[in-house]
Amino acid sequence: MKTSAKIDFPVSDIRRFLEPGPIVLVSSAWKGRTNIMTMGWHMMMEFQPSLLGCVISSANHSFRMIRDSRECVINLPTVDLARTVVRIGNCSGRDVDKFAAFELSPRPAVHVRAPRIEECYANFECRLADAGMVRKYNLFVFEVVKAHVARSPRVPKTIHYRGDGQFMIAGPTTSRYRRLFRPEML
Amino acid sequence: MKTSAKIDFPVSDIRRFLEPGPIVLVSSAWKGRTNIMTMGWHMMMEFQPSLLGCVISSANHSFRMIRDSRECVINLPTVDLARTVVRIGNCSGRDVDKFAAFELSPRPAVHVRAPRIEECYANFECRLADAGMVRKYNLFVFEVVKAHVARSPRVPKTIHYRGDGQFMIAGPTTSRYRRLFRPEML
Repeated sequence: MKTSAKIDFPVSDIRRFLEPGPIVLVSSAWKGRTNIMTMGWHMMMEFQPSLLGCVISSANHSFRMIRDSRECVINLPTVDLARTVVRIGNCSGRDVDKFAAFELSPRPAVHVRAPRIEECYANFECRLADAGMVRKYNLFVFEVVKAHVARSPRVPKTIHYRGDGQFMIAGPTTSRYRRLFRPEML
Repeated sequence: MKTSAKIDFPVSDIRRFLEPGPIVLVSSAWKGRTNIMTMGWHMMMEFQPSLLGCVISSANHSFRMIRDSRECVINLPTVDLARTVVRIGNCSGRDVDKFAAFELSPRPAVHVRAPRIEECYANFECRLADAGMVRKYNLFVFEVVKAHVARSPRVPKTIHYRGDGQFMIAGPTTSRYRRLFRPEML
């Protein structure tokens, strides 16, 4: 799968890609090994600093890797990667080198050791900003410290999990309601 | 706007509607007044109890009403309500009775005093389960204690905010990847 070259993107504007609720792939690195997990439970929490809340079940191999390294990359896959997204969620990094098994290309990140996934539309480099809710809720608050976004297409065809094996595929994007917004509400 | 009659829905399965990341309307009641706000930052946090994390800016009139009443209803609008969703976000409950101004029908909830919005596809009755992160992050952890979901259509055409006045409208739902899931991963 080939994506266009990625450009730097303002971290305060990543809501554009994450607020609509796509499934994401979380890549991590710890003690010389890498891993990838599929994640559906995340939300924007602040624009500046760019904060993202993510629930990562402690049953995941990635849980300890991310908690201990205090870093990860949130990667945004599109519908052409749907099969891979499911298969990544089916297996554990305990048993499988996921980059190798799924023929994904690790690329160095700028600010974190976790690798970016080249085949994904966007890569958001994250540092763990607050681990205070990890024990109670498996809730990681990350600061997105750098965003890499493909130059085209302008709007990615993301996939949105509905449970029970069903995905909603991103539909059309419309600006028809834009004129109704008070400017400060955009 | 007319929706079909609503049926009880298992609260542990509400991911079906909220995990794909739709914009929602939050209704509240406090000291004899009601209010509605538009909200985009939320995520599932647990199936059972059914926990939902929501970021509600303290600049909103609803913030205090929800914090003090410790209750709300999360209502799921569909694309036919898009204009109303934007207009609700444009004004404040300090100045406007939103149910009256937007001709929405308040319906009594079962477990909370906040009213359900009849015109929305689904209504999730919420009790504030944890206010410990409100001060630091404006993060409310709600328990969904009852779910009302329209009988049809089976999949609602939700709207997903991208910032800058743009919405993604829900595209098709597919089960074509379902057979790839290990059963326990569904």
